[in-house]
Amino acid sequence: MCGILGLVAQTPANQLLYDGLLVLQHRGQDAAGIVTAQDNTFHMHKGNGLVRDVFRTRNMRALTGNMGIAHVRYPTAGSSESSAEAQPFYVNSPFGIVLGHNGNLTNAVQLNRELFREDLRHVNTNSDSEVLLNVLAHELQQSTQNYHLDPAAIFAAVSGVHRRCRGAYAVVAMIAGYGLLAFRDPYGIRPLVFGCIDTGQGIEYLVASESVALDTLGFKLVRDIAPGEAIFIDGDGNFYNKQCADSPTHNPCIFEYVYMARPDSVMDGISVYETRLNMGESLADKISKTMRHLDIDVVIPIPDSSRPSALQLANRLGVSFREGFVKNRYIGRTFIMPGQQQRRKSVRQKLNAMRVEFSGKNVLLVDDSIVRGTTSREIVQMAQGAGAHKVYFASAAPPVRFPNVYGIDMPTRQELIATGRNDDEICREIGADHLVYQELDSLIKDVSRVNPSITHYETSCFDGHYITGDVTEEYLAVLEAQRNGGAPLSRTGSSTQLDLNLAAAD
Amino acid sequence: MCGILGLVAQTPANQLLYDGLLVLQHRGQDAAGIVTAQDNTFHMHKGNGLVRDVFRTRNMRALTGNMGIAHVRYPTAGSSESSAEAQPFYVNSPFGIVLGHNGNLTNAVQLNRELFREDLRHVNTNSDSEVLLNVLAHELQQSTQNYHLDPAAIFAAVSGVHRRCRGAYAVVAMIAGYGLLAFRDPYGIRPLVFGCIDTGQGIEYLVASESVALDTLGFKLVRDIAPGEAIFIDGDGNFYNKQCADSPTHNPCIFEYVYMARPDSVMDGISVYETRLNMGESLADKISKTMRHLDIDVVIPIPDSSRPSALQLANRLGVSFREGFVKNRYIGRTFIMPGQQQRRKSVRQKLNAMRVEFSGKNVLLVDDSIVRGTTSREIVQMAQGAGAHKVYFASAAPPVRFPNVYGIDMPTRQELIATGRNDDEICREIGADHLVYQELDSLIKDVSRVNPSITHYETSCFDGHYITGDVTEEYLAVLEAQRNGGAPLSRTGSSTQLDLNLAAAD
Amino acid sequence: MCGILGLVAQTPANQLLYDGLLVLQHRGQDAAGIVTAQDNTFHMHKGNGLVRDVFRTRNMRALTGNMGIAHVRYPTAGSSESSAEAQPFYVNSPFGIVLGHNGNLTNAVQLNRELFREDLRHVNTNSDSEVLLNVLAHELQQSTQNYHLDPAAIFAAVSGVHRRCRGAYAVVAMIAGYGLLAFRDPYGIRPLVFGCIDTGQGIEYLVASESVALDTLGFKLVRDIAPGEAIFIDGDGNFYNKQCADSPTHNPCIFEYVYMARPDSVMDGISVYETRLNMGESLADKISKTMRHLDIDVVIPIPDSSRPSALQLANRLGVSFREGFVKNRYIGRTFIMPGQQQRRKSVRQKLNAMRVEFSGKNVLLVDDSIVRGTTSREIVQMAQGAGAHKVYFASAAPPVRFPNVYGIDMPTRQELIATGRNDDEICREIGADHLVYQELDSLIKDVSRVNPSITHYETSCFDGHYITGDVTEEYLAVLEAQRNGGAPLSRTGSSTQLDLNLAAAD
Amino acid sequence: MCGILGLVAQTPANQLLYDGLLVLQHRGQDAAGIVTAQDNTFHMHKGNGLVRDVFRTRNMRALTGNMGIAHVRYPTAGSSESSAEAQPFYVNSPFGIVLGHNGNLTNAVQLNRELFREDLRHVNTNSDSEVLLNVLAHELQQSTQNYHLDPAAIFAAVSGVHRRCRGAYAVVAMIAGYGLLAFRDPYGIRPLVFGCIDTGQGIEYLVASESVALDTLGFKLVRDIAPGEAIFIDGDGNFYNKQCADSPTHNPCIFEYVYMARPDSVMDGISVYETRLNMGESLADKISKTMRHLDIDVVIPIPDSSRPSALQLANRLGVSFREGFVKNRYIGRTFIMPGQQQRRKSVRQKLNAMRVEFSGKNVLLVDDSIVRGTTSREIVQMAQGAGAHKVYFASAAPPVRFPNVYGIDMPTRQELIATGRNDDEICREIGADHLVYQELDSLIKDVSRVNPSITHYETSCFDGHYITGDVTEEYLAVLEAQRNGGAPLSRTGSSTQLDLNLAAAD
Repeated sequence: MCGILGLVAQTPANQLLYDGLLVLQHRGQDAAGIVTAQDNTFHMHKGNGLVRDVFRTRNMRALTGNMGIAHVRYPTAGSSESSAEAQPFYVNSPFGIVLGHNGNLTNAVQLNRELFREDLRHVNTNSDSEVLLNVLAHELQQSTQNYHLDPAAIFAAVSGVHRRCRGAYAVVAMIAGYGLLAFRDPYGIRPLVFGCIDTGQGIEYLVASESVALDTLGFKLVRDIAPGEAIFIDGDGNFYNKQCADSPTHNPCIFEYVYMARPDSVMDGISVYETRLNMGESLADKISKTMRHLDIDVVIPIPDSSRPSALQLANRLGVSFREGFVKNRYIGRTFIMPGQQQRRKSVRQKLNAMRVEFSGKNVLLVDDSIVRGTTSREIVQMAQGAGAHKVYFASAAPPVRFPNVYGIDMPTRQELIATGRNDDEICREIGADHLVYQELDSLIKDVSRVNPSITHYETSCFDGHYITGDVTEEYLAVLEAQRNGGAPLSRTGSSTQLDLNLAAAD
Repeated sequence: MCGILGLVAQTPANQLLYDGLLVLQHRGQDAAGIVTAQDNTFHMHKGNGLVRDVFRTRNMRALTGNMGIAHVRYPTAGSSESSAEAQPFYVNSPFGIVLGHNGNLTNAVQLNRELFREDLRHVNTNSDSEVLLNVLAHELQQSTQNYHLDPAAIFAAVSGVHRRCRGAYAVVAMIAGYGLLAFRDPYGIRPLVFGCIDTGQGIEYLVASESVALDTLGFKLVRDIAPGEAIFIDGDGNFYNKQCADSPTHNPCIFEYVYMARPDSVMDGISVYETRLNMGESLADKISKTMRHLDIDVVIPIPDSSRPSALQLANRLGVSFREGFVKNRYIGRTFIMPGQQQRRKSVRQKLNAMRVEFSGKNVLLVDDSIVRGTTSREIVQMAQGAGAHKVYFASAAPPVRFPNVYGIDMPTRQELIATGRNDDEICREIGADHLVYQELDSLIKDVSRVNPSITHYETSCFDGHYITGDVTEEYLAVLEAQRNGGAPLSRTGSSTQLDLNLAAAD
Repeated sequence: MCGILGLVAQTPANQLLYDGLLVLQHRGQDAAGIVTAQDNTFHMHKGNGLVRDVFRTRNMRALTGNMGIAHVRYPTAGSSESSAEAQPFYVNSPFGIVLGHNGNLTNAVQLNRELFREDLRHVNTNSDSEVLLNVLAHELQQSTQNYHLDPAAIFAAVSGVHRRCRGAYAVVAMIAGYGLLAFRDPYGIRPLVFGCIDTGQGIEYLVASESVALDTLGFKLVRDIAPGEAIFIDGDGNFYNKQCADSPTHNPCIFEYVYMARPDSVMDGISVYETRLNMGESLADKISKTMRHLDIDVVIPIPDSSRPSALQLANRLGVSFREGFVKNRYIGRTFIMPGQQQRRKSVRQKLNAMRVEFSGKNVLLVDDSIVRGTTSREIVQMAQGAGAHKVYFASAAPPVRFPNVYGIDMPTRQELIATGRNDDEICREIGADHLVYQELDSLIKDVSRVNPSITHYETSCFDGHYITGDVTEEYLAVLEAQRNGGAPLSRTGSSTQLDLNLAAAD
Repeated sequence: MCGILGLVAQTPANQLLYDGLLVLQHRGQDAAGIVTAQDNTFHMHKGNGLVRDVFRTRNMRALTGNMGIAHVRYPTAGSSESSAEAQPFYVNSPFGIVLGHNGNLTNAVQLNRELFREDLRHVNTNSDSEVLLNVLAHELQQSTQNYHLDPAAIFAAVSGVHRRCRGAYAVVAMIAGYGLLAFRDPYGIRPLVFGCIDTGQGIEYLVASESVALDTLGFKLVRDIAPGEAIFIDGDGNFYNKQCADSPTHNPCIFEYVYMARPDSVMDGISVYETRLNMGESLADKISKTMRHLDIDVVIPIPDSSRPSALQLANRLGVSFREGFVKNRYIGRTFIMPGQQQRRKSVRQKLNAMRVEFSGKNVLLVDDSIVRGTTSREIVQMAQGAGAHKVYFASAAPPVRFPNVYGIDMPTRQELIATGRNDDEICREIGADHLVYQELDSLIKDVSRVNPSITHYETSCFDGHYITGDVTEEYLAVLEAQRNGGAPLSRTGSSTQLDLNLAAAD
């Protein structure tokens, strides 16, 4: 998962992009980058770490210009700490293009090979974003051979990208001296919204992964970019848009609503907060129908993302809602000290149970989802250690049984607790007295209820159905081999590791 | 406000102290420091910033030894960012002593003068902690002139500190090659607890500002250090303690329970969480009795610290409790960019209102307290902007009308919204439709209910009664002149600014 | 002036390139960079500062692979400290190419415009090296459209570079996954040598600006790269070469021998050391013939570069040679402290006069050249202050009256002391009792004597004759306007400032 | 070896002290520190590394005040890179004192024990400078018990230091709010000079290890501080001095003149440059008398420090003097790269031989001294490799056979090539055709000739005679055991390692 921003402003863009990245930081804490454009020149700064750590005053000062794009990156399996696959990426031919991307290309290996053999383009990293940028660059070179650079040529290039690329991609890009481009894959998997503000001196545009960035920076949400659509805003603030895909469909990733997005975001016309309330209600109904015997004394959320679902669940059940866990807001490194017995870092350093809320009670713990199950097991133990009589566990999402190949970092099937286990077996694994999962049908209804016009969702991690049609068992096997630290089977000769754009300042 | 730790372990102390500082980080984000002791040598590292930013692997590696003290510091008026008054402090005569301190000496100026003129001791900073350390050092030099260094001599020195120092002080200190000392002022204003763990190889001791540090690091709470008491643990784990004050009384700072401490801490036998639940109930009772007409649709907490009070208040009133605000977890700097219009950084970057919870409703917002009132005003506006019909505001604490001189950084009386205003006037200032404050009597009862054995509390910021008896109107005037950036009236010649212990590594 | 290196080794290249940059550091102290290639991936690290400051262990560790290029950059007028025009540069189309360059293109502005308008290539900085790289990239794209990438296609691209580029350029470049390219402009202005070593496991090749890098790293000098020639060494160590220019001529920059190069280098078959000895002899002969009256007691060199000339001069004249100046080896910043009277930093902080060698004597000071004359004036004053009776001054080079446009940073004509002044006037300006300059004819003979096969030299800074034929008065006027901080007249729209490849790694 | 500075100025002291440290950098490249005093407050910054690397603008800005001391430290055996024994050191009782020191205490272990047991003072590091500071502090505390702090009390304390401390010590110190103290041990081993300048606003004083610091900063040399003497300058510029030792004698370290000091310094009335010329003459005379058969074609110095001796030697012999070696001015780290064959770093990276000066000739190489002999052996090989017919080697100093215990870091006797070998054996070891050493008698005469009033010198490294009388064979054995990385035999319990004053800023 990543967060992206694109801005065409009337005043310097750097502070707004920085503030916007802070708002999107929950979508990626691994690396951050900003590129601004002034006249025909790009100014870039990027690095590993949180937004607040990557940017210093001297970096910000060098990011001049009223236009820019920005990116936060989620840690993914391939990216070791020594690498510098931070986004955005840059190519200087044609025109000078920078690009940031949220999603994942499922045919990156094949594209990489094509780029090298046929387009004579060198991809220096393992990042599929660099692949995507080079495809865009090549297509733009093709589409501008005969006529001049204009929005039509740009949209033709995006159509070329749609023809060649598979997977999920929400993209912001800039063309030097020209303007800001944003587009979304023809399946509409990853979210991308835009808004504007009339400053009096002219209209400013902001493109973002989530609407909350618009709210916080004072922009008014215009709408979502449609699946397959591209928009282009030139340096003078002229707005162009076009549907660049042949037969787009709309399949938002349902995991955004379950966990990824901020509750105060609205994407594809769906309030994340409302879907989470709905999930709480559906869960309550399932419990009412099938587990009347449970005798729940109190509902306790596992902070922070399950709080709306848990509260609504408690209300619907008519059971007391209590804040039984305290979360530690400050996190730091675990240093490995020579000769020092490793004290196990666990969920206990992040959560603390309030004994008074557990002691002697039947508690229903509510989490947004269960992935590996290790955290759930520790939390159940904490509840038991705090004196709970019975510990029930509810997951606001259905069992996660398949990897996500569209940009959310997920463990392999072997690591997913729900793979090859039924509910009872999972319940035993996490040590709870009872376990209740959301039904997938209910989840889809909970989301659709908020915007009935969208009927399909990308739900592969729950049901194994991959919307792009190209994800084979073999593909998944290679993916998992890579994650397990095995040989880089899927790597072409032209791409192993990268440190190219890294020049130490200081 | 600061957080302090002292540890005598059987294995290296650095990682435990680091982890403990993370747990106490809410008590101070301005600076952090750790000193360990190995044989007769101290190893210190300290600096400005969050714990996670101050300590690097190479620093941790240099912090060898099984014993140590640690400190996090709250920003206070006098400490500019260029200064380096980070704690702990060190003196090399007598014996070599390091010290960290939570609280504030009200007679620091006079002590500084005495130290310089009579004890020939140089205090190089504005920090009253350096003053306190030098008083301790001088007293220890006196008490060991005739006989050898032993617990009795140390306790005699602490008695000397009690005789000379006024104000609040919870202290951890180490004497080189000897052991760990901790003591608390005779009024028992600031909290200090200790616990132990039997590792099999021997008993380890941990002293901390709050019990949550013990819980998280796996120590068992033994008890609070009593007002005026000192404890000493030597390198072999032998434990000594003594009441060193003549007539100690017990007056815990009530603001710890209102706001400062973590809810999962227990200090002076009082669970912070339970006091906050009680505050919610008292508030509900006041509302029931005096504001039946209000017609509240929904209770909404201002995250995070008011959540327990608000939930209990809602339950008691039988009104719906809703999470109407989303908090942004990631904070960064505001860069001042040349030629860039300053976009106002406001509470809106930290909180976002969920329109669905406000729209058309009469909402009761609950905060832990109101200090300057500026944040409250913005939040009321946000609620109104989100469509609330009526906005009522409840403060779980009484009106704050006086500065705190015992270690909590507070604005001057001129800046406190409640100074010179009654409830109606304050309500108008923050723009709410109705305002309800906790009564001080109720607050004291809410806390006392949890541990009836403590009958008095330090409540000066509410009622202007300063327990140490030496806080005159003139003292407050000087304090406020300093805060307002005026001339350093109270500074002696021997102390202006400091950068002494600052040596840039790398 | 810059220094460049290219290496194809059998073992990791990073340490050798680093050591080689240290040896070439005298050619540029402003910035440094290394790119290595492993399989098809480049690893780059570059930054502002001395070699020893730019590279840390973690950077070196990331520079994997047995092949690489490296660069040190001299400060030039356009490069402000905030910019990051450090070399090498990278383009990813076609193939992935990195390039480092010593020299200067005199038609960079026009090329930049062509690249943007016709080749659709974006040059993000003011660096003519980025222009040169893009011309090479474009030509390579052209030459490989019909047939595959092979040495013939590469040499065809170099021919294209020669057709389009004017000025001086000695170049090292790498093509990803293929090999190392090095070439020299058709006038042979900047030096470029190569050598090899048979390691037993295969032959290793090193290309360098000066032969001293070969000596120090244990390589045997093979020969100079000829004007217009290109050599290519693939990853398996196969060597190819071709003359790529139509009618190359050989005109080495004579200033390399006067000042720039290390005395222990041999370039274009000419030992720098021997030319400097010869210059001393010529100067001695001129003095003997025309200034017999001078009554010189002692010859004193201005350390370090004039020492060989001065010693030989003294020997030829039969006059005593003395080390009258002591040089301070350590240099640091001048901090601008608020409220502090600026103490003038002068040559006195770099040189100190030994009074015993000056007192009461007629001294002949010898420097390699006189540029602005300010240093000479201060040194004359120091000699007088140390008690010299008469101070004579000898310059081993002729008067410098014109800017260098082929890669040596020189002041404008207005700043050159010799512009518009005859010898007597210059002598008065620097305050000497007599001044003797080398004759240009003699200087050419001094160099030619060492390798009679080279008959022409680039001598423009002495005689204003620019060998490439395209340097007009208008060109020089624009150059000087730029240096004087004026408007960037010559800048195209597509190039103002750069910070693109700069990503702060902590 | 270390370099020290003390300054009482009329304007801010930081830039002058920084510039002065650059001039003294040759006396220590391991660590650097500056303390300034403003009113009663000290501001300190220190760290490992070169002066230019330790001080940044923000550090300099914090070093306010018109008075200060500064220090550069030579690497010594005990100081690992992880330690932070950078000077100056600080104690806060009595008064607040900072101190920097050049030399070595031979009874530091015993003093450390006394301080701990009798004076109750804690020495946190292995540095004898911290010991010295604590002795001074204790004595000052004693001498000011009955009467007030005044110059008499300070001089009494220095007398106490002389009574208790053994070894060599040239010291600068400041007392907070009072003034600058400087003194020298009663044997006068390490140099210490002072000078002044009348700025119009008042007289400024500068104390320095070498006179060259005075020259460069524009101060006029007043005189050396006498053995046993102390001077004190208060904040108003009043000057006091007193002989504080009972029976001082004057025994300057002769190695300062041979190698350590800059040639342009004058210390104890002796020009270093002139002594080196004299050494060249003495060597020439020895060669003339005893080695007429050698048939020397050319004299070649090993740069830089032997140049004056070599030139004078050549003149006296009537033999040609040639600069046969070129020195590389730029030095960098050797990175240890995994899997990379370690290419031997040798003297060849620092020196390069000019073949033309060696080929077919009998060359006499001149160095200032021979310590381990490894460098000499490599240089002889280089001369042979450059084609020399015969290689003769001259050392301007006698054979070094004993360690220096007065502040110059020397190898153990086992590592000294001259220990247990006669001249012929040493010659064989370094591979020369003939070896000539200076005679100790001649060396003493060479130095005495410049200032006949000084008749005795500290010459222990040549003759094993230790002037302070307390250096036993056992002492040397312990010293050598420590150097060999053995157990820290001589360490007291109260001192192992230190990192105390190290707080990471940023």
